[in-house]
Amino acid sequence: MKDARFTPEVLEDITSRVLRGMGAPESSAKTVARSLVLSNLVGHDSHGVIRLVEYSGWVQGGQIIPGAVPTIAWKDQATASIDGEWGWGQMASALATQTVIEGAREFGTATAVLSRTNHVGRLGEYVDSIAQAGMMGIAFCNTGGEVVAPFGGIKKVLGTNPFAWSVPGVDGYNLVLDFSTAVVAAGKVVLAAMNDEEIEPGALIDKDGNPSTRAKDLEEGGALLAFGGHKGSGLSVLIDAAAGMLSGNMPATISKSGFGNGTVIIAVDIARFVPLDFFREITRQFAGAIHEAGVPGTSSVAMPGEIEAKMKVSRLSEGIFVTAGVQQNILNVAATYGVLVPEFSNS
Amino acid sequence: MKDARFTPEVLEDITSRVLRGMGAPESSAKTVARSLVLSNLVGHDSHGVIRLVEYSGWVQGGQIIPGAVPTIAWKDQATASIDGEWGWGQMASALATQTVIEGAREFGTATAVLSRTNHVGRLGEYVDSIAQAGMMGIAFCNTGGEVVAPFGGIKKVLGTNPFAWSVPGVDGYNLVLDFSTAVVAAGKVVLAAMNDEEIEPGALIDKDGNPSTRAKDLEEGGALLAFGGHKGSGLSVLIDAAAGMLSGNMPATISKSGFGNGTVIIAVDIARFVPLDFFREITRQFAGAIHEAGVPGTSSVAMPGEIEAKMKVSRLSEGIFVTAGVQQNILNVAATYGVLVPEFSNS
Repeated sequence: MKDARFTPEVLEDITSRVLRGMGAPESSAKTVARSLVLSNLVGHDSHGVIRLVEYSGWVQGGQIIPGAVPTIAWKDQATASIDGEWGWGQMASALATQTVIEGAREFGTATAVLSRTNHVGRLGEYVDSIAQAGMMGIAFCNTGGEVVAPFGGIKKVLGTNPFAWSVPGVDGYNLVLDFSTAVVAAGKVVLAAMNDEEIEPGALIDKDGNPSTRAKDLEEGGALLAFGGHKGSGLSVLIDAAAGMLSGNMPATISKSGFGNGTVIIAVDIARFVPLDFFREITRQFAGAIHEAGVPGTSSVAMPGEIEAKMKVSRLSEGIFVTAGVQQNILNVAATYGVLVPEFSNS
Repeated sequence: MKDARFTPEVLEDITSRVLRGMGAPESSAKTVARSLVLSNLVGHDSHGVIRLVEYSGWVQGGQIIPGAVPTIAWKDQATASIDGEWGWGQMASALATQTVIEGAREFGTATAVLSRTNHVGRLGEYVDSIAQAGMMGIAFCNTGGEVVAPFGGIKKVLGTNPFAWSVPGVDGYNLVLDFSTAVVAAGKVVLAAMNDEEIEPGALIDKDGNPSTRAKDLEEGGALLAFGGHKGSGLSVLIDAAAGMLSGNMPATISKSGFGNGTVIIAVDIARFVPLDFFREITRQFAGAIHEAGVPGTSSVAMPGEIEAKMKVSRLSEGIFVTAGVQQNILNVAATYGVLVPEFSNS
């Protein structure tokens, strides 16, 4: 086995087969596979096919019920509650996204809360779909594990609680913002600790609250920091409170569950306020001003979502690079379910 | 004249009289005065009574039409458009806040966009009112002047574009987050430049893009930075796009107007999803965990909104400290309109 590039179709097929092996129905397997490979396509490999390893653990542990299909628990005017039924978070998210788009079409704005929902994947995917429908999308979710210290504190209390926001764009991409409220993703630090590597300054404190770059400090009583001081920490607190409680998933420090994504998705129909063509035309001018804000002669400054869109074009043409290590990990997971992956074995 | 403390009632009365002098009807003068003094009460003096100086300039310049009263331009199910009529931004915001609370009561969630609206004051006030009504509130507005460079850039393109978010709390305060997406408020830097002072590192770059603490660099071709690197910058871009375009106020770099706050206010009725008592009880437990996240033996870590709530209790009992300089500034503004302020003159 060696590092290699794969087309998204091949990766989706492999991923879908492994998910089928775990017990996912065909439509769930296809949706989750498409979602994971899309993360690879836009350059967020940490949210890509490597997640099969984690998902397998959750299936084995009973946190993910692979055959469960999410439902709309109730819909009441501009609000809806999606019951993930502890199935695949991407399925619940797709249903919630569709529900808020339809709700905002009818009422002008709509909010859905996702309960009993596993890892939703990349929030940017869902707000991008909302923007694609001509709407503004806001999504945030609380993550199950306590790993981030609140600003001014040293103890792990908060999850990495991501926030995403989108509006329709131009030139082939929507304005999509999607970030973890932790400086760095917990997964990256765990990986760095395995390899005894350092992480960037400003992201981690040790058990005594001192700044650290030693990844192992996270598992030895340290904590990740929220981005942007008290402002990013405040966002994380609001996410843990709002998404955690509205969904019943509970703030990480209350549930102590270590899994589940309490999620809120909001859509606002732009056309109720201004014509979508006008919105897009001004966005084009605005993007032009941002692009030209850099040091003269250097490359253009990127709009939110632009780097991902360019990466997608590039990876669609050149394929998605998957290291031998990641292939081996997926191969091992596949073997657990008796699924063969000759595409990896032969590469 | 010397530095002195005043009760909120006295400051509100003074402020109201000065606003009446500018041409505000009595109810507008009272509402705006209450809003400004509330900012002083919760400790945000930069958004307090000192704003009379700026407002007077806008009234003189014709940007604020002091007698204008905002209206609901249209209401369509869960969405509404508030026309500020270029009157007092606080009046438009109060109307929008009331409108989204009523809308969310009826539809579960509601969104209002404020057009032709002057400085709205402190967004935290409005989301706090939404939380007080048992709801989650989100508010953001784009500010008229280009003063912040986008992440990776050196040119001023963005406003200071604040963002606010709230949920109901316990123990006398709601969870209220309210921040500028710039590291520091532009007003603080302008003030520091007047006194030839330094500002904190990480907030400013000079005209060549080099980090600077010299406040005067802002007026000499430099730019403020967004908080939290690409994440905070991305929030600012989304605010300028969404609030700027939905309101017609336009992103700062398009309008070049230097004033106006395109504003979006969203409310979600919590009781549709979970009982409010449950929400409050879990908030109490969650706040307990945050409080105890600090270094053992040190003071407790604050929840969003908690510092402001404590400041309010303290200033309600001890009065609001107003420097001789601020008193003199307000006295000068008052004199323009023939308004006497013996409370300041005698102090």
